[in-house]
Amino acid sequence: MHSLIKELLFKKLANPVLGQLSDAAVIRYKEGVAFTTDSFVVNPLDFPGGDIGKLAVCGTVNDLLMQGARPEYLSLALIIEEGFDYRHLEKIIDSVAFWAKRANVLIAAGDLKVVEAGAADKIFINTSGIGRLVRGRNLSVKNIRAKDKIIITGSIAEHGFAVLSSRRSLNLGFEIKSDCSSLNNLLLPLIKSFNQIKFMRDPTRGGLATTLNEAAESSGLAMMIDESAIPVSGKVRAAAELLGIDPLYVASEGRAVIVIAPEAAKKAIAMLRKHPLGRGACLIGEVAKSPKARVVLKTAVGTERIVDMLIAEPLPRIC
Amino acid sequence: MHSLIKELLFKKLANPVLGQLSDAAVIRYKEGVAFTTDSFVVNPLDFPGGDIGKLAVCGTVNDLLMQGARPEYLSLALIIEEGFDYRHLEKIIDSVAFWAKRANVLIAAGDLKVVEAGAADKIFINTSGIGRLVRGRNLSVKNIRAKDKIIITGSIAEHGFAVLSSRRSLNLGFEIKSDCSSLNNLLLPLIKSFNQIKFMRDPTRGGLATTLNEAAESSGLAMMIDESAIPVSGKVRAAAELLGIDPLYVASEGRAVIVIAPEAAKKAIAMLRKHPLGRGACLIGEVAKSPKARVVLKTAVGTERIVDMLIAEPLPRIC
Repeated sequence: MHSLIKELLFKKLANPVLGQLSDAAVIRYKEGVAFTTDSFVVNPLDFPGGDIGKLAVCGTVNDLLMQGARPEYLSLALIIEEGFDYRHLEKIIDSVAFWAKRANVLIAAGDLKVVEAGAADKIFINTSGIGRLVRGRNLSVKNIRAKDKIIITGSIAEHGFAVLSSRRSLNLGFEIKSDCSSLNNLLLPLIKSFNQIKFMRDPTRGGLATTLNEAAESSGLAMMIDESAIPVSGKVRAAAELLGIDPLYVASEGRAVIVIAPEAAKKAIAMLRKHPLGRGACLIGEVAKSPKARVVLKTAVGTERIVDMLIAEPLPRIC
Repeated sequence: MHSLIKELLFKKLANPVLGQLSDAAVIRYKEGVAFTTDSFVVNPLDFPGGDIGKLAVCGTVNDLLMQGARPEYLSLALIIEEGFDYRHLEKIIDSVAFWAKRANVLIAAGDLKVVEAGAADKIFINTSGIGRLVRGRNLSVKNIRAKDKIIITGSIAEHGFAVLSSRRSLNLGFEIKSDCSSLNNLLLPLIKSFNQIKFMRDPTRGGLATTLNEAAESSGLAMMIDESAIPVSGKVRAAAELLGIDPLYVASEGRAVIVIAPEAAKKAIAMLRKHPLGRGACLIGEVAKSPKARVVLKTAVGTERIVDMLIAEPLPRIC
């Protein structure tokens, strides 16, 4: 089994860096690099619009992009429960290979651990990633200023509801497709074109509300958002009502929140909308000086309310 | 729980790179970097001479060193079973922080996933690492030539037997201490001093026999080793006999196999022996042209036998 899996990995993920077969891949860099890590424990492993392999590639690729870096190399570490179906594993590795190619990243390093039955739930995947910073770009929450505009690249919460709706215990009666995607082709041209981008973040765990709260806390500024401007699909709205879950707190895996200087916002949205993954890009709000470190939602009926940080994790194993 | 753990991580692992609190850490590099990943699923979490936290740091640090790189940044990704004892977690994070400091690496990126009780066995840790190549060094199995000497930096198999002996199901009647250590201070000066080093590898999973078989296979050369020269402690010898396990196949986590040009071997061993972690350094054999891609052991009684690649994994969850 072990050697079968090794063969599988090397065959499907072959590239010149991984091919070195050493303890560490060697990469030649001349500039600053971004470095990130994420473990994926999603349950179930397959959901409408994706699977754990796609998620593990896209999640880490997007984390590098959020830093203003061109994703280049990923590591792939698998923890597999003994007895896990080999054909299913093959499908997952195919998915990793496919999405790595699509995202233009090489799997540079790998690891595989098999644990006894019952010691892990089927398969967990860790991907770490490194990427080269786009020259002259330095995205950071520290760059955010009052009057900056807040953009979202598409409708929210589809990933989280897709995973929930594919769990056997739930039956929504309709399918929601995850937005899970790697955003290289959408965001790299944008990063290069606009030096007015201050900050980017993908609203994954905890959703848009958590991402904006983190930005508010770290910058000490207020994120003022407009409920009626936030794109939410009809299916997500319906699922949210049925399940009693606020979509503001539900993960996307193929969207980005972008904070940008006011003069560049319109042009950036126009550019985003030209790409299939950015067709739903919207201006959803702006940054203000007060209330300090808070997210404020202007509701559809015209009132305002504080959107708090998520206290507990309501949706376990969404990614 | 979740926020408690986050606080714990940030408090214990604080450093300027992690402090950026972004999706990806940003690192300024000007030269080639080495990149590696490893997941740790060791059972039990504590064993004589170490614990999963120490192992997760030292294992990845050593993988970078084996490539001739100075370890600089690690990522740390935890998968924790719901209900795992918080004090135990704190102890593990203390160990990560302590050994990271000792190995002179920064924890630059992190991730935390909590899965429901029963979905993982207590805690799994992934560390990925990046390091800067020592200038002018390019270690690779491709550099190995016939007549090169094979060195081991100390006695073998102590880590594997330490973990085994600390499992409740086994009672050896004596304790074996793991050799688990980060080898920066032993190996960086050596790498800088000797441009005759061809190849290095830490004999972890599958032990010395597997490491040498991989080198033999990749180089197409023969690794001729001398049984009487291989350092094995008395306790390891006793445990090996009791359990019927060949120490050649058992993991070390603080040793390195070094292949070096013949003229430099003696001086390298003398330098290794000056350091506490290299006191047991020995010349254990040399490279030959044939039998191609094989490891040959000259036994204590003067006969020769082929040391095969490990077929099955005899010791699960050793690291």
